[in-house]
Amino acid sequence: MQIQEISGGICAASGFKASGVHCGIRHNRTKKDLALIVSEVPCTAAAVYTQNKVKGAPLAITKANIANGTAQGILCNSGNANTCNPNGAEIAQTCCQLAADATGLAPTDFIVASTGVIGQPMEIAPFATGIPAAAKALSHNGSADAGDSIMTTDTVRKEFSVQFTLGSTPCHLGVIAKGSGMIHPNMATLLVFATTDAAISSTALQQALNEVTAITFNQVSIDGDTSTNDMATVLANGLAKNEMIESTASPLYPAFVQALQHLFTLACRSIAADGEGATKLLECKVSGAANHQLARSIAKSVITSSLFKAAMFGADANWGRVLCAIGNNTADFSAEDISVVLQSSAGSVQVCKHSAYSPFSEEEAAKVLAQEEIEILIDLHSGSGFGVAWGCDLTYDYVKINGDYRT
Amino acid sequence: MQIQEISGGICAASGFKASGVHCGIRHNRTKKDLALIVSEVPCTAAAVYTQNKVKGAPLAITKANIANGTAQGILCNSGNANTCNPNGAEIAQTCCQLAADATGLAPTDFIVASTGVIGQPMEIAPFATGIPAAAKALSHNGSADAGDSIMTTDTVRKEFSVQFTLGSTPCHLGVIAKGSGMIHPNMATLLVFATTDAAISSTALQQALNEVTAITFNQVSIDGDTSTNDMATVLANGLAKNEMIESTASPLYPAFVQALQHLFTLACRSIAADGEGATKLLECKVSGAANHQLARSIAKSVITSSLFKAAMFGADANWGRVLCAIGNNTADFSAEDISVVLQSSAGSVQVCKHSAYSPFSEEEAAKVLAQEEIEILIDLHSGSGFGVAWGCDLTYDYVKINGDYRT
Repeated sequence: MQIQEISGGICAASGFKASGVHCGIRHNRTKKDLALIVSEVPCTAAAVYTQNKVKGAPLAITKANIANGTAQGILCNSGNANTCNPNGAEIAQTCCQLAADATGLAPTDFIVASTGVIGQPMEIAPFATGIPAAAKALSHNGSADAGDSIMTTDTVRKEFSVQFTLGSTPCHLGVIAKGSGMIHPNMATLLVFATTDAAISSTALQQALNEVTAITFNQVSIDGDTSTNDMATVLANGLAKNEMIESTASPLYPAFVQALQHLFTLACRSIAADGEGATKLLECKVSGAANHQLARSIAKSVITSSLFKAAMFGADANWGRVLCAIGNNTADFSAEDISVVLQSSAGSVQVCKHSAYSPFSEEEAAKVLAQEEIEILIDLHSGSGFGVAWGCDLTYDYVKINGDYRT
Repeated sequence: MQIQEISGGICAASGFKASGVHCGIRHNRTKKDLALIVSEVPCTAAAVYTQNKVKGAPLAITKANIANGTAQGILCNSGNANTCNPNGAEIAQTCCQLAADATGLAPTDFIVASTGVIGQPMEIAPFATGIPAAAKALSHNGSADAGDSIMTTDTVRKEFSVQFTLGSTPCHLGVIAKGSGMIHPNMATLLVFATTDAAISSTALQQALNEVTAITFNQVSIDGDTSTNDMATVLANGLAKNEMIESTASPLYPAFVQALQHLFTLACRSIAADGEGATKLLECKVSGAANHQLARSIAKSVITSSLFKAAMFGADANWGRVLCAIGNNTADFSAEDISVVLQSSAGSVQVCKHSAYSPFSEEEAAKVLAQEEIEILIDLHSGSGFGVAWGCDLTYDYVKINGDYRT
């Protein structure tokens, strides 16, 4: 199947409108802080959520609203996470009601999300004016505005879309995402809102989301901290009119999963490259593991190591830290015959063979590591399991951004 | 029981001599890189080791040498971890033989350890001249030299000793330790060498070491990376002539454990305060948990969070990150009624009550966080479990040190 990257973001799929406005949650009046996405027709819906025990108030409301497998809109603010607020649930509920009033839908048709500082007081006033304004601004060209509105320390908007076919029917998938710090998804992920015009049942959609999240967003780590507000959702409105994907047994299901994986991988790479303070995208590919899960887990160990991340910032081929990070994985596996290759557009250098040093040119390695995208290729030589994880380097700017985040 | 902090380090206990010399593993000729510790009489011995699957070559040699519960000396170099070297085991064995030749003991009487860069070629030549020199330099005043010789990025020597009584017999315990980065002990710890003149069987000594390590060194984290070479050992030579502690059932056993805990806590605080790039010591105390283990685990979650560590560097009372870090703990517990107090010599500020924000003066909080030692007091209000963990802030200098560690 051919998957074509196209423009349009979350409005690339038929029947979706979006908008983004400044409603006043943020003090900076030039920064949009409220996003709205609405489908012209009801959608099947699926979501995965953070495993953090401290959860943002909107998560429970969203969970209840899509318990029946359907939704029609998404509302998300940035600037305040609505987490650890005594009146958090009330605010999230009221937001759904305001969105319903402004769009003619029901409050339970909405997925609601928040991102920003945890534990800051929050008021309903900005939403009371902002939500009607966002509803008025809804447009088929609104994906970029919505994408901008959910950014926090992100320096780049994360907005992608693809076209693919189910049978012979052209379908579309789009996504906006945010995430730059507190990124270490666990079963769920940062904020990800995806839309599609494919016709797919909510159970098949949920299964596809679970499968793809496990190998995409759950394989990204910026700083090892799993956020309280992580959430990834997909709305599918069926307007492409493909033969309905009723279950995972449908012959069209694999094609949908493949398109979703393609889309989410684009978002993952963009999120990792734009990690707080990052100067480099790290992509760790592990092969030769006993199984895929172990390979993914080891890849994530490597891109999570602060020591390795700092070495990548310094373009220092300190491969011992790769071995150390691999060895720290708590799974049961042999670390006896590991090889490590560092690779980028500037070339490829083998730095470790049979779990021991392999003579290499430091000069060549420095050239490889001077690039903005570094691949770390690891082979465990003990099976056919494969996995990828994405991260970034640890820099002075990460410390600067997080030394004084609230002001 | 009264535990008195005294001078003397690992030579505070009767019958122990130590030395530290420059033998040439490090290129910097003014930096000592080889430490030797020897007891005048045979000792019972106990050790705990890293759980990292990639292990330094010396660990297996040490394990074999003390399998019979006895040892009489310790040899440790810095500058090269002797890890991921094809000839690592051979070098560690030869070092024991050289130490035996120079001291008149047997090769199997030695505990051997290495710390420094992983995966660098290593030669025996520096040891061939260095070990005899270290043996010649052995002295009852040699603790500081030995302590200096095992330092890597440490900026402060970690050397402590205490006097305590077993029955009415005065006994002594001393320790040197190193550790500044790649510090996140798991069941074992960084490099810790302790000596005592207490009479205690190797099984009781091992049990005491296990117990105390769990609540001291295993509760320290600098950067979440568990080293390949972690090891903590105690040698007990019995020269204090207390009534022998044969087992954990001995009435004197609790007093020994208490003294060991006191000593190791001093070392933990020193290691955390001297974490790579650190400007602040963080001590997180968790009370009100269902059990001690959960309390310790949550305390460690908090001091391990990069986001929280960066906020402490910036003296930013961003307590939402404390809640986020608590919630990330994978154990089963309720996060419904958590309180958080930030405390230092400048005062005490409650920043969170019932898991929600509690109005506080930012100015007062900034004063509290401007100090060099910060306590984070967390109460879960759901039991009587208590635990402590130690860490440090995340700073520009951590990134600088680790961006180019090998040169």
